[in-house]
Amino acid sequence: MKEMALIEQVLKATSVLVREKYSERASVSVTSKSEANDLLTEVDLAVQEYIVEQISLLFPDDLIAAEEGDFANIPSDPDCRCWVIDPIDGTQNFVRGLFPAFGISVALAVGGTAVAGGVALPIPRDIFLAERGAGAFRSGGGFSEAAGRGRRLTVTQTAEVGLSRIEIDFSGRRERGETLRRAGKVVTTAGQIRCNCATVVALCSIASGDMEAFVHVALNPWDYAAGQLIVEEAGGRATRLDGSPLRLFDHGRGVLITNGHIHQEVISLLE
Amino acid sequence: MKEMALIEQVLKATSVLVREKYSERASVSVTSKSEANDLLTEVDLAVQEYIVEQISLLFPDDLIAAEEGDFANIPSDPDCRCWVIDPIDGTQNFVRGLFPAFGISVALAVGGTAVAGGVALPIPRDIFLAERGAGAFRSGGGFSEAAGRGRRLTVTQTAEVGLSRIEIDFSGRRERGETLRRAGKVVTTAGQIRCNCATVVALCSIASGDMEAFVHVALNPWDYAAGQLIVEEAGGRATRLDGSPLRLFDHGRGVLITNGHIHQEVISLLE
Repeated sequence: MKEMALIEQVLKATSVLVREKYSERASVSVTSKSEANDLLTEVDLAVQEYIVEQISLLFPDDLIAAEEGDFANIPSDPDCRCWVIDPIDGTQNFVRGLFPAFGISVALAVGGTAVAGGVALPIPRDIFLAERGAGAFRSGGGFSEAAGRGRRLTVTQTAEVGLSRIEIDFSGRRERGETLRRAGKVVTTAGQIRCNCATVVALCSIASGDMEAFVHVALNPWDYAAGQLIVEEAGGRATRLDGSPLRLFDHGRGVLITNGHIHQEVISLLE
Repeated sequence: MKEMALIEQVLKATSVLVREKYSERASVSVTSKSEANDLLTEVDLAVQEYIVEQISLLFPDDLIAAEEGDFANIPSDPDCRCWVIDPIDGTQNFVRGLFPAFGISVALAVGGTAVAGGVALPIPRDIFLAERGAGAFRSGGGFSEAAGRGRRLTVTQTAEVGLSRIEIDFSGRRERGETLRRAGKVVTTAGQIRCNCATVVALCSIASGDMEAFVHVALNPWDYAAGQLIVEEAGGRATRLDGSPLRLFDHGRGVLITNGHIHQEVISLLE
């Protein structure tokens, strides 16, 4: 599939750029967007610009929705072909922190559903790729495993929330009260709680068997387009918080993505 | 100081062991302790055994308090010399996860206060060292910076909770309800929330200017002995949740460690 090859190529190329910039991140220029904690760097912009350019060369008629600038719009035609890009998800963690938990996300959606997608985690040199109906695969090493192209990903078989690691995303300050109220029982019931505030990292973790669930009360499509597909192709499940279908462009808000086995139990714990 | 040299030596030696074991972690044997999510590996035991052995050779009369096995006792003599060890803090993150957020912690306490301490983060090859009254220093690289021995650490000058990154530790399942109740206002007020469930990583992050505060409602002394000293020597502040002094062996529970500038505001937000 020509689209998959393009996704892999842009993820590899932008990972090199992001690694270079990360090694000198003290000198990267940072600005705030909607509020002081919503950050944008020159690196987000450079990555997005490169990916948009490459897509436009090969697929000039496709739409593009991306996190930054003029591209941050949700297409109104539900049947369109639309590329969905987050140049850096986890920009806060790019800017500061001892561990580089951030990634680059690119997906192609047709009719409001991702059909091809990939996530790169530049510092551990991980790339996760999935095509609808053809499985999810990880190439690149991570910090602990030998590199090896094409390991197929599968979610865990864990079937109890009390034995599960769950990411509760507290990133948006405006939604924190709502998150506490709706996900409070998940917090007290889960085996382990994490909050890294990088959706793509959590979703790749579910696909690779390193986590069981991800809960977010208000998420933009570029944050989960590729990650949702990767988890689904690894055997997991993705819905809105009430269990209804998770679409990309329906202006819904909450997102629940799990290994599938604990999905219903998490829904029953959400308020 | 002979004790500082010993701390640095054991951290370096055990970091090598932990890196080796991490690269083959799928085959590391894991057991549960008090509950299914409280994990112990052969690596925790090997690291603790090595550190205890090295301390006993040089300082045979000193007491030792450490996380695992028979050493998990708090000394009753408040004036004793006691080494306080956590062989791996963040064992859950050693066992699984895409990012290696765990560390080794060693401190010497005299009269219930750490006077020398160090933390190693084995995968990024970071070592943080502090001696009471002499500052905190980082050698080793991390993922983004050039290695360079002896960079002095200082906390951030951030003076508002709303602009701060704060780790709320939800690790202990039994204390999650209490954590939600007491720290709920901190969650809704903070600039950014994180929960990595590795105390030493959070405390080194505060000392290095990558985070502003850490809140835990029930913590054992081996989790914070070295980290508290490193933050204080980097200019930060450590107390119980009510602002009273944070001692190692007084059987107190809650811990608040910050950059100092937001300390009072966090206390005012805690219930």
